[in-house]
Amino acid sequence: MTAGAPVPTAAVLVVGTELVYGLRPDTNGPDVARSVAAAGYTPSVIAALPDDRSVIAAHVRDATSAHDLVVVTGGLGPTHDDVTREAAADALGLPLRVEHDVASTLEGIAEGHREPGAASQVLRQACVLEGARVLTPSTGTAPGQVVPTARGHLVLLPGPPGEMRPMLAESLAALVRREQVPPRVIGCVDIRESDAQLRAERALEGHRGVSLTVLGRPSLVDVVLIAHDLDTAALAAAADEVASALAPHCYATDGASLAEVVVGGAAARGITLGLAESCTGGLVAAALTDVPGSSATFRGAIVAYADEIKRSALRVSHDVLAAHGAVSEACVREMATGAREMLGADVAMAITGIAGPGGGGPDKPVGLVWFAVADGSSVSAGSRAFDGDRSLVRERATVHALDLLRLTVAPRA
Amino acid sequence: MTAGAPVPTAAVLVVGTELVYGLRPDTNGPDVARSVAAAGYTPSVIAALPDDRSVIAAHVRDATSAHDLVVVTGGLGPTHDDVTREAAADALGLPLRVEHDVASTLEGIAEGHREPGAASQVLRQACVLEGARVLTPSTGTAPGQVVPTARGHLVLLPGPPGEMRPMLAESLAALVRREQVPPRVIGCVDIRESDAQLRAERALEGHRGVSLTVLGRPSLVDVVLIAHDLDTAALAAAADEVASALAPHCYATDGASLAEVVVGGAAARGITLGLAESCTGGLVAAALTDVPGSSATFRGAIVAYADEIKRSALRVSHDVLAAHGAVSEACVREMATGAREMLGADVAMAITGIAGPGGGGPDKPVGLVWFAVADGSSVSAGSRAFDGDRSLVRERATVHALDLLRLTVAPRA
Repeated sequence: MTAGAPVPTAAVLVVGTELVYGLRPDTNGPDVARSVAAAGYTPSVIAALPDDRSVIAAHVRDATSAHDLVVVTGGLGPTHDDVTREAAADALGLPLRVEHDVASTLEGIAEGHREPGAASQVLRQACVLEGARVLTPSTGTAPGQVVPTARGHLVLLPGPPGEMRPMLAESLAALVRREQVPPRVIGCVDIRESDAQLRAERALEGHRGVSLTVLGRPSLVDVVLIAHDLDTAALAAAADEVASALAPHCYATDGASLAEVVVGGAAARGITLGLAESCTGGLVAAALTDVPGSSATFRGAIVAYADEIKRSALRVSHDVLAAHGAVSEACVREMATGAREMLGADVAMAITGIAGPGGGGPDKPVGLVWFAVADGSSVSAGSRAFDGDRSLVRERATVHALDLLRLTVAPRA
Repeated sequence: MTAGAPVPTAAVLVVGTELVYGLRPDTNGPDVARSVAAAGYTPSVIAALPDDRSVIAAHVRDATSAHDLVVVTGGLGPTHDDVTREAAADALGLPLRVEHDVASTLEGIAEGHREPGAASQVLRQACVLEGARVLTPSTGTAPGQVVPTARGHLVLLPGPPGEMRPMLAESLAALVRREQVPPRVIGCVDIRESDAQLRAERALEGHRGVSLTVLGRPSLVDVVLIAHDLDTAALAAAADEVASALAPHCYATDGASLAEVVVGGAAARGITLGLAESCTGGLVAAALTDVPGSSATFRGAIVAYADEIKRSALRVSHDVLAAHGAVSEACVREMATGAREMLGADVAMAITGIAGPGGGGPDKPVGLVWFAVADGSSVSAGSRAFDGDRSLVRERATVHALDLLRLTVAPRA
């Protein structure tokens, strides 16, 4: 495809009443969207639709007339609410025909079914649209279909992800428009979304063919660079400039998570890590141990939820707890020192705060969290006041703790 | 609304290029869909759209002409790619005007911004559609809007879930079409989806007006009962029968999480809890401490990731580790006993296993996890072999640990 030619577009339709009612998250839509983008199509919509023949038919009709590629997942199974085949036939005005190879395979499977009526139900799956290329299932029973349309192609795939994915790959292999440069995700922490946006925009002033999306999550901001008529090296150069403009808030330019950067940084420097957690209650440990290979650097954590555990397991002194309370600079410093000794770690991080909804007061409001890092030569401590409910305070405290660990284990200049 | 009148329909549009590219899962769409269903609207589509003014405008135009309620989330922020306001104005042919109350609040926030240009960016958020009711943000800066349409209403909400949710509740409170009997979610654990389905179907044979959806998550199965022309008491009676048919796998009939049931059960019996975690790395502690008020029963956890911590903090003997290894019945029993003593808890649970991808072998494959519960009079232990990748093994082990705790703290007959 030559530069300047219009980029082909794709629509993704995911079928299932439970999806439209929000009773189950949709994983197929994002999966298919990433794959069609990698095959050179711009994803224009992901729509979840109910198991309703006329609704599906209307969406397939609109999507096939507006987009070069339309991928539909779900509704190809044997039960009465699987109506995608019939809806697609309605939309394109094509008859359904029995695919005999598929039918004979299914007949073997159907013979194993004991419930009356099950056999004919299973055989419905052997029906394909006139002119469709059949995608044979590697697992499961529902075949997929690739149907030519006036603008391009309609691809029908089964809903179970394990059946859908191999057929998606097989169907797209024949429909690749151009190899797309994958987007770059630049991870930032401890910066406002609007500040990240402005800094990134200024860094991109000299770069053409890159579009920018800024995504805020609690305490994290992702700056996403999408290439338009730009090769991988040029996008990488743009990403490097954006990352410099965002330093020291930028923790990754390759999509790595903050925990992965902490584990990788500690491993590179041969530093072992330990934790003392109170209000985060294990979330920081869970984030670090989510990283494969974290056992090389992460030794463990003391989740000291009760004050007695802060005393018995972390050696926080009775006087400190009596005079300053568990949410205090004096306590968090002793927690970090105690965790470092108890866990035999090079660096220990401690977190203690008030996640709410109870436990706050005028001096120590809900959202106040103390952090300390002990590295053997010194202990540094600081506090933050986080907004939000219990789970948001815990999430923000977890991100901040990981960020402090990142800065502690960062390569020395 | 009288029985037999047409049920009003709703469309949910979620805006964000990252969503259409599958770079981030959409949580707002399912959230909004559940809420509009509870308010008496049938959700007809959830569509993810890019940050593209003309695409959003086209979808808003189609949706408002086809549906009684259209809820759009995202694209109301201050950055250049936040174009939902303008797109909605295009779609309905309405002018934008500055809402002065919002503007003066935003001016205060804008003064705190250091980046040049940020202030005018922030103030764009004060623009609302002519005739819109403004939803004042409790957190964040972007106000929501409720705009009358020919068929009903268009609701514009900000994308960050913490800002979106309170405004969604506020906007729907005024738009409820009929009080829907809320669905009953019966939480089950350690049972196959198909077995749960068959047992629930048999239990419902004598009940009319209830439909059944069975949703499997890793290690958990939700049996959802949806009322059709049935009141709350009748649905509750049906839920009780289904729950009996699913006992002892049923842990809640009121939508409570497994961790909430554990914390509630322990609190009711005055039992304190402690944990020793290895492969789950803090996930069980994080789940328990996610429950408000868990500090009354949960004392803490030792996350003993390194074997030295199993020895030093949990008093696992050198001989046991040398003879049986860390993933063994002998080790998990000592971990539970050690945690109980170390944490001064009535009941301690220990978990040690191989989450992968590395660390497995012929005798101890990836997915093997040992569990033990020590209650002061005895220690019981058992193992499971879980399928899946690292995060799935960790998640399944966490669910099983919580389930063992649930059975341990359950009310005595």
